[in-house]
Amino acid sequence: MTDVIAMGKAAKQAAFILSQLSQQQKNKALQQIADQLEQQQDRILQANAKDIEIAQQAGLSEAIIDRLLLTPDRLKSIANDVRHVISLADPVGKLIDGGVLDSGLKLERVRVPLGVIGTIYEARPNVTIDVASLCLKTGNAVILRGGKETQYSNKVLVEVVQSALEQTGLPKEAVQAITDPNREFVMQLLKLDRYVDMIIPRGGAGLHELCKQHATIPVIVGGIGVCHTFVEQSADQNKALFIIDNAKTQRPSTCNTLETLLVQASIANQFLPKLAEHLKAKQVKFHADSAALLILQQAGANVQPVQDQELRQEWLSKDLNVVIVKDIEQAIEHIREYGSQHSEAILTESQKLAQQFVSQVDAAAVYVNASTRFTDGGQFGLGAEVAVSTQKLHARGPMGLEALTTYKWIATGDYVSRA
Amino acid sequence: MTDVIAMGKAAKQAAFILSQLSQQQKNKALQQIADQLEQQQDRILQANAKDIEIAQQAGLSEAIIDRLLLTPDRLKSIANDVRHVISLADPVGKLIDGGVLDSGLKLERVRVPLGVIGTIYEARPNVTIDVASLCLKTGNAVILRGGKETQYSNKVLVEVVQSALEQTGLPKEAVQAITDPNREFVMQLLKLDRYVDMIIPRGGAGLHELCKQHATIPVIVGGIGVCHTFVEQSADQNKALFIIDNAKTQRPSTCNTLETLLVQASIANQFLPKLAEHLKAKQVKFHADSAALLILQQAGANVQPVQDQELRQEWLSKDLNVVIVKDIEQAIEHIREYGSQHSEAILTESQKLAQQFVSQVDAAAVYVNASTRFTDGGQFGLGAEVAVSTQKLHARGPMGLEALTTYKWIATGDYVSRA
Repeated sequence: MTDVIAMGKAAKQAAFILSQLSQQQKNKALQQIADQLEQQQDRILQANAKDIEIAQQAGLSEAIIDRLLLTPDRLKSIANDVRHVISLADPVGKLIDGGVLDSGLKLERVRVPLGVIGTIYEARPNVTIDVASLCLKTGNAVILRGGKETQYSNKVLVEVVQSALEQTGLPKEAVQAITDPNREFVMQLLKLDRYVDMIIPRGGAGLHELCKQHATIPVIVGGIGVCHTFVEQSADQNKALFIIDNAKTQRPSTCNTLETLLVQASIANQFLPKLAEHLKAKQVKFHADSAALLILQQAGANVQPVQDQELRQEWLSKDLNVVIVKDIEQAIEHIREYGSQHSEAILTESQKLAQQFVSQVDAAAVYVNASTRFTDGGQFGLGAEVAVSTQKLHARGPMGLEALTTYKWIATGDYVSRA
Repeated sequence: MTDVIAMGKAAKQAAFILSQLSQQQKNKALQQIADQLEQQQDRILQANAKDIEIAQQAGLSEAIIDRLLLTPDRLKSIANDVRHVISLADPVGKLIDGGVLDSGLKLERVRVPLGVIGTIYEARPNVTIDVASLCLKTGNAVILRGGKETQYSNKVLVEVVQSALEQTGLPKEAVQAITDPNREFVMQLLKLDRYVDMIIPRGGAGLHELCKQHATIPVIVGGIGVCHTFVEQSADQNKALFIIDNAKTQRPSTCNTLETLLVQASIANQFLPKLAEHLKAKQVKFHADSAALLILQQAGANVQPVQDQELRQEWLSKDLNVVIVKDIEQAIEHIREYGSQHSEAILTESQKLAQQFVSQVDAAAVYVNASTRFTDGGQFGLGAEVAVSTQKLHARGPMGLEALTTYKWIATGDYVSRA
């Protein structure tokens, strides 16, 4: 019987213990988790086979089934990801700033864990281990709620983690999972503000919206990238082709993928045929506004008219919207209307226009002459990625380990009163 | 007719303009606001007189009426607070960190305004100007919703601000107020996630709870301080008396005021009579657990038994709970159960126990041998205070101007693709 309140209470207790651990103690537990994932491979793959069977019977798509699937290689890679987390620096205990106030009070701001994290995610069993290890590394307890498609895999994965925790003397309630697929438990988790400090959804727009609407706990909204690249008339057009190619086709299913290309009208006739030619081998399908449509059709591209709704969504595929804009103001205006504040790029040789774009475009990451594909905790040198926030909270864009911490003000004096 | 959605849309447009302003331009507008507040004194005081009259007719308490009241002196002081904000450094545009990635991409993290702030507050007209000036300083637009008790004052104050904005060429929608007292508009504001980036409630526990329950926007919860001070047996008892006096009586209505004193059992018989004696002249009324009750009664103190519920609330008056604990573990346990994660203090001569307390007590501010009254943006050297967060978001404790900003990642390259 799932009792979410009891889970929250136990998580809070565990969080207290975790917050007191040394980096070494946390790393020892992570090491044990990595080892156990490999040693208990058979048990994990058996449970996963059950999820796969159910998914196949339910007629889920090949793509989803592939996301669910664990193999010996994938499990080894998940274990190695845990080992990578061990190698990262622990932000907890880090002194952010400090000084002595006029009153003589010595004031320090020190990083501490957030406490208890709630994570709601979809059909990816690797997220279970990923989130658990990042939370553990930063001294946070976590309550996991994975998609019902991975319930058998998740159940065993969490058992493996919990037994590793116990083997290293840590409370198993540091990592708990709600495996009952009843949706009611998601609602309960979202309202568990008494025990849970932050909700991190990992999934599509619908999941983020659900969390935003129902949570009484701060939610990190993000991960939805309706990303643009604006080709300004001074851009080096040959180099621009490679940036667009990379941003669109390198891994189309990611949130930092280019979805809408904005091309300045003055170069559209010249540039779009080159683009059609360059992307032909990559099977990119264009969705163009009326002006771009004509040019792309004449260039023999695979193109159809774009719908307004298509400009507001992620394709997550090799589809690319193309819109012709008069100038940088119109490009920025378009991004303000259609963007998701994730990653936006300008390609230009003009320092002045680059500066204008960077200043006026409101997004977590803004690029000049680079691919939007760089918006990623690993690429940004954060070592890991918990989520990509598109909220204007104090954590924005790729969130590394530090984003799983807050701080505490510590004030020390010699019996100091306020004047 | 109040149209909250239209206000949100206009605020977002204004925020775009504000985000592009120089420090000088913003300060010019603030200067104009300060001057206009003084020049339009008569109009403001007339509107305020109307609020006061209604409050008197409604039989509101003297304390509340005093909070509502504006006088020439108070208005001058509000104008001077705006001038103080001018003198503060603008965090917007500040480079947080940066470097060149392996890919050759130059990455910078730069402070930018949050965008649009929604503030819901109670019967204090000074908050209207306070929040408006702090938001303006940091390039944020704001939608204000003050208590119905100040509706006439707020209406005129916002008109004064808006005309000052227009006189300096800024959009008046940068500062808007919902003055219609219908509560429905609060609900609409809390769900305006399309346009509003953050909600900052300023008021009591009920208001914070309302915002937490209904907002689809991140809420800064805080300002509720059930603060403790633990007198450990090694503490210098004579010095401790002055700290407790300061923490309880200096300004009892504030959130950083001491509410519950925890005294180690081994010194209770010796220390509590001294405390009763010391606080007698200050009219402190004690609410004691059964063990402390006896000692305080024998010492002739004004004391009565404490109820469990009283240990969970703010007195906001010269009432002080007294609880005897066996040791530091029991003190920390009590704080975990009853505290509001605001400000907690230990008085001790033991470095080891001080360290244990600081590490194990989970609060925005933790004190060693100092009064909890220091938890304040001004005292902490932040120059201003937007709110005191007791959430474990990325902003915790006193929030200064920086807490009204987020950051943007800016990446510049020479046509760089992701490998």
